[in-house]
Amino acid sequence: PKTAVILAAGLGTRMGERPKGLVKVAGREILYRTMHLLQKNGVKRFVIVTNERYAGLYREFIEEHGLNAELVINPEPEKGNGHSLHLAKDYVSGRFVLVMSDHVYGEEFIREALMGSGLIADRKPRWTDVGEATRVRVKNGRVEETGKSLNEWDAVDTGFFVLDGTIFEITEALEREREGDYSMSDVVKRARLEVTFLDGLPWIDVDTPEDLKRARRMLVKTAVKGTGDGFISRHLNRKISTEISYLLAEKVTPNQMTVVTFALGIISAFLTLLSLPLAGILYQISSILDGVDGELARAQMMTSRFGGYIDSLLDRYVDGAFLAFLAYSTLTKPLWYLIALLALLGSVMVSYSTERFKAAYGKDAYSSIPALRKLPGKRDERIFLTMLFLLYPVETSVKALFLLLAIITNLRVVMTAWLIGRKKS
Amino acid sequence: PKTAVILAAGLGTRMGERPKGLVKVAGREILYRTMHLLQKNGVKRFVIVTNERYAGLYREFIEEHGLNAELVINPEPEKGNGHSLHLAKDYVSGRFVLVMSDHVYGEEFIREALMGSGLIADRKPRWTDVGEATRVRVKNGRVEETGKSLNEWDAVDTGFFVLDGTIFEITEALEREREGDYSMSDVVKRARLEVTFLDGLPWIDVDTPEDLKRARRMLVKTAVKGTGDGFISRHLNRKISTEISYLLAEKVTPNQMTVVTFALGIISAFLTLLSLPLAGILYQISSILDGVDGELARAQMMTSRFGGYIDSLLDRYVDGAFLAFLAYSTLTKPLWYLIALLALLGSVMVSYSTERFKAAYGKDAYSSIPALRKLPGKRDERIFLTMLFLLYPVETSVKALFLLLAIITNLRVVMTAWLIGRKKS
Ligand SMILES: [Mg+2]
Ligand SMILES: [Mg+2]
Repeated sequence: PKTAVILAAGLGTRMGERPKGLVKVAGREILYRTMHLLQKNGVKRFVIVTNERYAGLYREFIEEHGLNAELVINPEPEKGNGHSLHLAKDYVSGRFVLVMSDHVYGEEFIREALMGSGLIADRKPRWTDVGEATRVRVKNGRVEETGKSLNEWDAVDTGFFVLDGTIFEITEALEREREGDYSMSDVVKRARLEVTFLDGLPWIDVDTPEDLKRARRMLVKTAVKGTGDGFISRHLNRKISTEISYLLAEKVTPNQMTVVTFALGIISAFLTLLSLPLAGILYQISSILDGVDGELARAQMMTSRFGGYIDSLLDRYVDGAFLAFLAYSTLTKPLWYLIALLALLGSVMVSYSTERFKAAYGKDAYSSIPALRKLPGKRDERIFLTMLFLLYPVETSVKALFLLLAIITNLRVVMTAWLIGRKKS
Repeated sequence: PKTAVILAAGLGTRMGERPKGLVKVAGREILYRTMHLLQKNGVKRFVIVTNERYAGLYREFIEEHGLNAELVINPEPEKGNGHSLHLAKDYVSGRFVLVMSDHVYGEEFIREALMGSGLIADRKPRWTDVGEATRVRVKNGRVEETGKSLNEWDAVDTGFFVLDGTIFEITEALEREREGDYSMSDVVKRARLEVTFLDGLPWIDVDTPEDLKRARRMLVKTAVKGTGDGFISRHLNRKISTEISYLLAEKVTPNQMTVVTFALGIISAFLTLLSLPLAGILYQISSILDGVDGELARAQMMTSRFGGYIDSLLDRYVDGAFLAFLAYSTLTKPLWYLIALLALLGSVMVSYSTERFKAAYGKDAYSSIPALRKLPGKRDERIFLTMLFLLYPVETSVKALFLLLAIITNLRVVMTAWLIGRKKS
C-alpha cells in the first residue's frame, strides 16, 4: 500500500489535553514513529482524520516534519471512529493502510503488518494490556465477533488494517443505519473482515499514562541490536542497560550517553593507579553503560552511522587505556610488559577482525558466520573477567589476567579468520 | 555491445608455435584477460575467428574457462585479417566489439573503449612500441589514412573497434575486389571509420617476446591500487615493489607472497633482540614487499576478498609484534612501557579508523574523504621512520621513536574522526 489513513479524531480523555498521536514516547511523537516507519517501508502519502480542535496542532506537526499528509476534519468526533474512516473515502483509492493514531508500533511490526491484509490481529500480545484490548473471535480466517468483553476469543485487534475501497460499502450502510455513530469494531464485524495473525511483535495501545510507560519499555527492550553481544552482555549487561535506557529515554541523548560512558571508561583506566578493585568495578559499569547509547539511539529513532563510528572508536580507546594503565600500575618486568602489549594488540584485533570483514564483504560478520557468535573473548566477557581478576588483586592474579587476555583475544582472531576462510572457500 | 568478435586467425611468426591469444602474461592467457574484462563490462557472447591449426587449442581454452564463445574457422589465414572479420558476418547483429587476440588491454582501457564507437585510437600510446604500431591520420573525426609508415599521423590503432553491421558492406566490396586478401587497415580506410580517441590508457600489441615483457610491466605498474598509499609508499616502496612484482609475475602467487612478507615481518620483530639496525632494515624490506601480494593479485587477476582480509590482519600483527618486541628489547621503565602501549594502540587504531569507516559507510575512506590522504602516519611512513630511528640506536632515540609514534598515530585517529564528522554533518 502506498497510502495510509490515520484515525486521530478521538478526543483525549485519560491523557490530558494533547491529542494522543502527538504525545511523545522516547522523545518522538507516537504518530511520527508510525509515519516514519510506514514511509521507510514504502508508504508515500498520509491522510489524517482529526477533529476541529486538533487540526491546528496536526498541521504544525506535518509541517515540522515535512510529511506528505492531508488533513480531513471530522466535525463530530464524539461519534464512533467508524465515521472517521468513512470521511477518508474520497482521499484514497485501491489498497491502503488504516492505522490508529494512539498505538505505538515497533519496526518489525510495521514491516510484517504491511504484508498482511484485512485486520492485523495478535494471538499472543506481548506488550499491550489484554484487559483493555478489543478482542476478536475468528472463524474461517474472518472476523466473527469483536468486543472488549468477549469471553471466547482468538486474538486482539492491533489497530492496524490493510484495506481497499470495498470497505466503504460497509461504512456507507452503517452511516445510514446508525446516523454516523459506529465504531471500527462495528465496521470490522459487519465486513466480516479477513484476519492476518501477527503474533508477539511490538505494538501497544496507549490509553493511560501507565500505557505510555509500557510503550517506552517496549521501545527500549526492542532496541537491543545484540548481534555482537557476548555471554555477559546477554545475561547481565543488557538486563541492566535497558532499565537505565528506560529511565533516561525522555531525558538523555545518545551522544550525551556516549560521552559519559567514555569518560567513565577513561576514569576507570586512571583509577588503576589508586585502587584495582574500584577500577575493575567502574570498568564493568562503563561496559554496562556502553549498551545504553545504542539503545537510546534506536528507541529515540536517532541512530546515525557517525554516532556508531565514534562509539566504536571510543570503546577501543577505553580498552586500550585500561590495559595500558593497568600494566603501568602493576607490572615491572619487561617479559610481563611484552605479554601486556600482546593482550592490548589482541583486544583491538578482536574488533578489527569483524569490522574488517564487514568492510570487505559488506555484511555483518555475526550474521554471515553464526559460528562466530560462539567464540569467547568479546568485549563484555573480557571486561567482566578483568573485573573478577581485580576484585582481590595479588601480583599473580594481574599477571594471569594479562596472560589469559593475550591468549583468548589472539586465539579468537585466528579462529575468526579460520571460520571466514572456511565459509568463503 | 553484447557481442565481441575476436580475430585470432593470424599464424604466429615471431612468438613460437603457440597462438598469440593463448600466450600467458602474468599467469593468464592474453585472450582470457580480454574476454574476462569484456564480460565484466557487459559483453555476453564471443565469436572467435581462428584457423584450422589453432581451432583445437581454442576449443580447449573455451571449455576450460567456461566461456560463451563460438569458433569460426578461416581456412585461408595467410590472407589479410579483413577476411577474418568478413567470416564473422553471419554470427553478429547490431553493435559489436571487434578486438585483436594478440593485444593486452588493461581494465581501464576496456571500460572506456566500450563506450566509444568506430576505431579506438590512442594519441599518446604509453606502453606500446609506436615504431611497430599502425598509424592513423584522422580528418573530421574519421579515418583518412592508415599505415605503419605514415609520416603525418594523429594516433595509433589500438586494435579495438566498436562496429555495427554496416561494416560488412565494406568487407563485401573488398572480398570481390581483392579476392579475400585485405587487412583491417584496408577496411578501416575504405569505411572512413569514425574514430574515438582514448589516450594513454593501458594496452599493448604483443608481437615479440620483448613486447611480452612490456605487457607484463604494464600489468604490474597499473596494478597499484594505492588509495591508501602514504608518502614513502608513493615515492619509494611502490617503485621497488612493482619491479619485484614484474620479476615474480609468472612464478609466484599472491598467497605465497603474503606468507613470505608476513614471515619476514615477524622475523624482523624477533631481530630486535639481536640487532636494532638490522631489525629496522628488515622491517622496511617487509614493508616494501607488503605491496607485492596485492600487485601480483591484480596483475594475475587473482584478487580475492579473503586474500585482502588476511593480508590486512597479518599487517596489523607484524606491526604489533615489532613494537612489542622492540619495547621488550629496549625499555625498562614502566613509564616508557606505557608510552609503548599507547604507540601500539595508535598503530592498530590508524587502520581500524579507516576500515571501520568502510564497514559503516560502505565506501573507501580515502575516496570519500580525500583530505585523509594528506594526514601523516600511514603504515609505510611509520615503518620508514622506525627504520631511520633504529639505524644508530641509542636509548634516547628508541624512546623518542615510541613517543613520536604514540603522538602521530593517535593524533591521526582523532583527525580522521574529525574529518569524517565534518564531512558527514
Ligand atoms: Mg560505546
Ligand atoms: Mg600485507
